[in-house]
Amino acid sequence: MGEFELLAALRGRLPEPGPRVRLGSGDDAAITVPGGATATSVDALVEGVHFRRETATLRQIGRKALSTALSDLAAMGAEPGEAYVVLGAPEDMDEEELLELGEGMAAVARETGTTIAGGDVSRAPALTLAVTVVGHAPHPEGLVTRAGARPGDALVVTGELGAAAAGLLMLEDTGLTAKAFGAAEPLEAGDPRPERSSGRRLDVASADALRRRQLDPTPRLAAGQALAAAGATAMIDISDGLAGDAGHVAAASEALLVIDAAELPIAVGVDAVAAAAGRDPLELAIAGGEDYELLAALPPDAVDRAREALAATATPLTVIGKVEAAEGARIRAEVRLPGGEAVPSRGYDQLRSRRPR
Amino acid sequence: MGEFELLAALRGRLPEPGPRVRLGSGDDAAITVPGGATATSVDALVEGVHFRRETATLRQIGRKALSTALSDLAAMGAEPGEAYVVLGAPEDMDEEELLELGEGMAAVARETGTTIAGGDVSRAPALTLAVTVVGHAPHPEGLVTRAGARPGDALVVTGELGAAAAGLLMLEDTGLTAKAFGAAEPLEAGDPRPERSSGRRLDVASADALRRRQLDPTPRLAAGQALAAAGATAMIDISDGLAGDAGHVAAASEALLVIDAAELPIAVGVDAVAAAAGRDPLELAIAGGEDYELLAALPPDAVDRAREALAATATPLTVIGKVEAAEGARIRAEVRLPGGEAVPSRGYDQLRSRRPR
Repeated sequence: MGEFELLAALRGRLPEPGPRVRLGSGDDAAITVPGGATATSVDALVEGVHFRRETATLRQIGRKALSTALSDLAAMGAEPGEAYVVLGAPEDMDEEELLELGEGMAAVARETGTTIAGGDVSRAPALTLAVTVVGHAPHPEGLVTRAGARPGDALVVTGELGAAAAGLLMLEDTGLTAKAFGAAEPLEAGDPRPERSSGRRLDVASADALRRRQLDPTPRLAAGQALAAAGATAMIDISDGLAGDAGHVAAASEALLVIDAAELPIAVGVDAVAAAAGRDPLELAIAGGEDYELLAALPPDAVDRAREALAATATPLTVIGKVEAAEGARIRAEVRLPGGEAVPSRGYDQLRSRRPR
Repeated sequence: MGEFELLAALRGRLPEPGPRVRLGSGDDAAITVPGGATATSVDALVEGVHFRRETATLRQIGRKALSTALSDLAAMGAEPGEAYVVLGAPEDMDEEELLELGEGMAAVARETGTTIAGGDVSRAPALTLAVTVVGHAPHPEGLVTRAGARPGDALVVTGELGAAAAGLLMLEDTGLTAKAFGAAEPLEAGDPRPERSSGRRLDVASADALRRRQLDPTPRLAAGQALAAAGATAMIDISDGLAGDAGHVAAASEALLVIDAAELPIAVGVDAVAAAAGRDPLELAIAGGEDYELLAALPPDAVDRAREALAATATPLTVIGKVEAAEGARIRAEVRLPGGEAVPSRGYDQLRSRRPR
């Protein structure tokens, strides 16, 4: 199968184009009629940097490539529209494997109402997926940037934190998972912050859920649109870690973001995995990254409205801090620990990291 | 320098955003207000597959990545708008080198009026550039697909053919270039089609021009818009080779495309390089690929109008054949050689090829 045949086979697996798409994949370019404002973002997954074929199926890799790209549209409050995919395939992958990857992507496209409207396939030394996504809103003012957080706003986060980082620890070290199933001892003996740890052993359902959060994150598209409609003043998706991403909002909004560690909705099982790994569960929740939850600033009177709107999509919303006025070096994100200590923001920096994830 | 600092340094080198861009690079997504129809295309350049750092400067690689992506917009007759760039950087590249690459891209953005509105930087085992480009037109009908060629239309091509393939031969074998400078002998002795060969030796200016056409192609943006305005019924850019790309137009338009080999505008110097390499200059012009000229179908009465419009942009336009009605296996492109023989279309298939270009 050559490039053109493979592209045709991949196209055959895609859902029907959405109403804005006048011409999909197969010509020099796709033709769309956006009619309003568009939000466009691009994201890459590279084998050995962002994933390993030893710990993820090709279907999961395909799903994650589109899901993580769509997460940026969720963070703008945009309605998902079109995706354009570059697939760099190593020589050891055959057509069946490439189609499995494509099917994972097509499944997320179907679930989210996204049209995969174009693509390019090339040989590459490592499996590489670069995905551009285009989202829509009736007006540019309907899209939420990182820059509008105002002093007095509440900071809210969707869903739960730390799950993806705990899932990664489990995938990278299966011995750790076994240890976490009986984690009561090391937890009581060595955890530096016992008041935050449940002491519960990890159960099978929680272990599966944590791994799934790492391998197959869900873009919070409906929640993002609901938060935008509720009046979010700033929003970002948590890909680099809560503290690092809060730092981006702080910088863009020129404000101080104060996060109360005691309020963080840490996912079930993170405590047990952290204890087994000799890590701090709070660290996984704050700096672990890849949770793909949304962090938003909301005027205080909009919080209840937003929570109700999100309840309709079964997404929890938690107030985790507030926005304060700041100048100069005070423009940053801080995590206040239960004792009152303020931890400066930390993020995951892809270029510096050498660790395969 | 980490990912965020590098992105900031790259952003500092970019031209000002265009009027449709409300928010450029730096947030979760760029915000644009398209207002009409958009054409979107995605293209990847991978080290060892599409280029080699031994034969191209980083500035040239950056230029080519954006230029070849924009060539697809030219083929739609779209006005260039925004570009979104994924840069996969191997560990042996330092910040200065990445900025040189970025500057090459920024230069093409400036020359073409393109806004680089977003990007993502990651580690990768080989230098990888994936570029998504968005072009604009007032209405979807103003964009030209591959599918509208009608029996009786004239086939036209912009500029000259074979130059990029000849340039590649010279870059891959510098001994060949020396031979081509004194190519009179092997040309007279061994060329299978002497009536098409000038017998001229390669001169320095032509040699430079051929290499430049391979390393730094120019997207025919103004020509594409002029051809669309003149009434082009189908259009494609010649990336895979004239015959192969004509085959795509034939398939999409369900017609027979007949190309007259004697009419092909073969670039100066291609004869000499082909002779030195023991290749057929016609093969380089027909199947060499990467010329990034435009092939269009035009109603016969629109040819003079189109030629005048292109003269304003100093772009030659040559009638090279015609569109005929066809059914079944006759739906294809054919190149008719001077003796009357019809050669079926051939293309360059990226997945099948193992040859570094």
